[in-house]
Amino acid sequence: MKIDLNSDMGEGFGRWRIADDDGLMDVVSSANIACGFHAGDYAIMDRTVQAAKEKHVGIGAHPGLPDLIGFGRRTMAVSDAEMEAMLACQIGALQGIAARHGHRVTHVSYHAAFGTMANADDGRAMRLARVIAALDRDLTVFSMPGQPTERAAEKAGLRVLTLFLADRAYTDAGTLVPRGRNGAVIHDLTAVRARVRQFLEDGSVRTIEGSRLAVKARSILVHSDTPGSLELARAIRAEIEAAGAELTPAHRLMDGC
Amino acid sequence: MKIDLNSDMGEGFGRWRIADDDGLMDVVSSANIACGFHAGDYAIMDRTVQAAKEKHVGIGAHPGLPDLIGFGRRTMAVSDAEMEAMLACQIGALQGIAARHGHRVTHVSYHAAFGTMANADDGRAMRLARVIAALDRDLTVFSMPGQPTERAAEKAGLRVLTLFLADRAYTDAGTLVPRGRNGAVIHDLTAVRARVRQFLEDGSVRTIEGSRLAVKARSILVHSDTPGSLELARAIRAEIEAAGAELTPAHRLMDGC
Amino acid sequence: MKIDLNSDMGEGFGRWRIADDDGLMDVVSSANIACGFHAGDYAIMDRTVQAAKEKHVGIGAHPGLPDLIGFGRRTMAVSDAEMEAMLACQIGALQGIAARHGHRVTHVSYHAAFGTMANADDGRAMRLARVIAALDRDLTVFSMPGQPTERAAEKAGLRVLTLFLADRAYTDAGTLVPRGRNGAVIHDLTAVRARVRQFLEDGSVRTIEGSRLAVKARSILVHSDTPGSLELARAIRAEIEAAGAELTPAHRLMDGC
Amino acid sequence: MKIDLNSDMGEGFGRWRIADDDGLMDVVSSANIACGFHAGDYAIMDRTVQAAKEKHVGIGAHPGLPDLIGFGRRTMAVSDAEMEAMLACQIGALQGIAARHGHRVTHVSYHAAFGTMANADDGRAMRLARVIAALDRDLTVFSMPGQPTERAAEKAGLRVLTLFLADRAYTDAGTLVPRGRNGAVIHDLTAVRARVRQFLEDGSVRTIEGSRLAVKARSILVHSDTPGSLELARAIRAEIEAAGAELTPAHRLMDGC
Repeated sequence: MKIDLNSDMGEGFGRWRIADDDGLMDVVSSANIACGFHAGDYAIMDRTVQAAKEKHVGIGAHPGLPDLIGFGRRTMAVSDAEMEAMLACQIGALQGIAARHGHRVTHVSYHAAFGTMANADDGRAMRLARVIAALDRDLTVFSMPGQPTERAAEKAGLRVLTLFLADRAYTDAGTLVPRGRNGAVIHDLTAVRARVRQFLEDGSVRTIEGSRLAVKARSILVHSDTPGSLELARAIRAEIEAAGAELTPAHRLMDGC
Repeated sequence: MKIDLNSDMGEGFGRWRIADDDGLMDVVSSANIACGFHAGDYAIMDRTVQAAKEKHVGIGAHPGLPDLIGFGRRTMAVSDAEMEAMLACQIGALQGIAARHGHRVTHVSYHAAFGTMANADDGRAMRLARVIAALDRDLTVFSMPGQPTERAAEKAGLRVLTLFLADRAYTDAGTLVPRGRNGAVIHDLTAVRARVRQFLEDGSVRTIEGSRLAVKARSILVHSDTPGSLELARAIRAEIEAAGAELTPAHRLMDGC
Repeated sequence: MKIDLNSDMGEGFGRWRIADDDGLMDVVSSANIACGFHAGDYAIMDRTVQAAKEKHVGIGAHPGLPDLIGFGRRTMAVSDAEMEAMLACQIGALQGIAARHGHRVTHVSYHAAFGTMANADDGRAMRLARVIAALDRDLTVFSMPGQPTERAAEKAGLRVLTLFLADRAYTDAGTLVPRGRNGAVIHDLTAVRARVRQFLEDGSVRTIEGSRLAVKARSILVHSDTPGSLELARAIRAEIEAAGAELTPAHRLMDGC
Repeated sequence: MKIDLNSDMGEGFGRWRIADDDGLMDVVSSANIACGFHAGDYAIMDRTVQAAKEKHVGIGAHPGLPDLIGFGRRTMAVSDAEMEAMLACQIGALQGIAARHGHRVTHVSYHAAFGTMANADDGRAMRLARVIAALDRDLTVFSMPGQPTERAAEKAGLRVLTLFLADRAYTDAGTLVPRGRNGAVIHDLTAVRARVRQFLEDGSVRTIEGSRLAVKARSILVHSDTPGSLELARAIRAEIEAAGAELTPAHRLMDGC
């Protein structure tokens, strides 16, 4: 069995950093790299791509809203056309950096409010998927299962890799328990490892209501900007290896479909 | 005879504009588009590329230093590697926007201090030329004749299109008379037209010292951010047409080499 | 009779300008100066304050949301505390610039979405008014009549100067006809002058429905970022002078209350 | 004996942080607060001022160059007038924030390249000192001893507080050993404490050449953006307390002069 482990990367700016990117780069198989809108600048993008190449980590664009102060977490009143331009601009910038290092951008994973806004309706999701396809038909789109982004990407002829969040509680309806609600985030690493184990064994997760929920996912996502993200990523990777699964970058996983 | 007429475009930001881009787009054959560092944002880049496509104008990246307040005119203490990342990032961003519109970036023209710094020595010019070649070997590089950028681009296997500035005085040494010196900028349109005529007839210009100087150039550049740039561009174009020369976008000029 | 004529100023950034500030400074009696959040930078603020001082124009802070690309016109999801900090920061910055020129900030006029958000409810308006009072109890607050901002400023012990928009249509309810609706903006200068005349004569305006509406206002506002703003301001000033009214900066108008 | 211990604070941006400001605020007596140019935004400034007030820590403006990516460490080609405007703008912004919290800005401490450029010549230092005096004659200026900034501030009638850097090596000439040179930074806390002890005992430091150098200083500066800055600050404070000296905010130290 093959599985991808991915994390957001390069989410600093100038001298500022938010996660232990060097550490994470040794653990994950795919990196979603901030492209300068919600975080990241030319120098950080450059170093992150270079590190990913050295560590044989697959790279994807992690486009966000143009809002450094808000870290791309505040929804904004922008048109579909503006979102399309933002998306093209950010993927393109990372492709440029990747080209200079002889590396290649192989996936796209929306950041925070950009993702929320992309999933607002199927029409918008479709317009964005077409932008991605116009830039490179071989790009894989990351999505939570069942979202407009997933449907749109498939319609646009793109491959989709669905995500499992090992440290987040799920409801019976298959949605995440919203942050802020009791039990939404699972901090105990032993519990997280048990969840990864169950997911790897039979593709399911125990919901907050106590039921068993099937989760269609090919990759596990670790948000790098939470405290202890490196430990979390290591724990998940240890469990993947213990299960005898093979850690595989997203795009190679897709090639094998 | 074929000649290109190019101008900087999309050098606004948010609501701000610096030139009559709509007007210029009807006059020039190539547009050098700001990529968000010294000017330009995703929405302006998007509209500029779209307009260029509709008007069959060739597009190039116009990369600058990351300095909106200084409009990319102040040299900065940055390393070669940082300049390489800046360059890759900006060309890539424009390529992304172009791809979404089914258009293609076909040239690169450095902006202001980025150009000055790129021409500081042959080593740096070479590193930057290699970045361009890594992104797309078919990109044409714009350069003043005799600069490190020209030599480096040729060494990197890229095509170079050299520029003539019809409204700037030349010295016998073949350099431009620096702005600020008396007679550096020729404001009289009749005089500019006469210069274009002479350049088209025998590839020469009368220097400030009064000699005849051969100018090896395939394109005439109009800086859009000077007052009256639209009238200047129109006057030059009228002279080109009167001479029976054929206005041709930079990349097609190169293809015909 | 004394009346103030005010306009937004310094709404450029770096090399970019949006209005003929030099021209306007000869016409208005009060300038609302952008403070670097939606527009304006240290150098533009500096020159605008200096020009205002030379022309004996009263100066006010024109605080906006931190959104250069959107020109402060997009509402944002920010807390009351954040708005308070934004407000204090911007007024303070202008006070600093004014102090260095021996000039003094005497009023505050909210910009675009900052104003809309300030008027969302009385509680928020009150918190913002208290910030202004904490910075300088002598500051006059500009407001459309009947808004939460007016009520809050009065409660906070601040003076309020209410505004009349000569080129905007009013409804019988006393509100502005929203931009985009037919007849919302009056472009004909003769019609604008007639409205100013009526306003100066008996403090009323003819509404879009055709009724006579009393307008309680001490100052006429000209938005500088609309085309022809300088001609508009001149036409209004000519009408003020023809009516024998005395053009008086906002703060001196208030001192005479 | 009274002594001040100060550190740079609020040097984050949006979600990013560079130091343990909460921890440092319990240790220092004066905080130099970034004002949004090289670091800091309205929200961070607001929280930092509030925390300083609660902990009875004196606050000063820490103005820098407008360069978030470069953290204000790259010198820039700007005019004296531009630096004056930058300075007024930043002190004013912090004064605004302070006023809203009923706190008061009592000192000014230049950041990085802004300081280097301020000390380039006595003329520039004088122009900047006059800006400070125009904003508030009671502001204390922080300076390394013997610099143009110290002389200018005194000439402008401002009080000056000179600094001692306990973790930096000094030369016989009284200058700091430049970073990057062997032994420039003293990382060993025991050695740092010994230096603080000597400084408190007889106002001297042992130079890198081995001589005893008199250091005229009333405050010890801890750069917060170096790893371990909190431990460094605590070690210095412990030494101050062990020596029976009284930790006193800069402005109260000055009042007692």
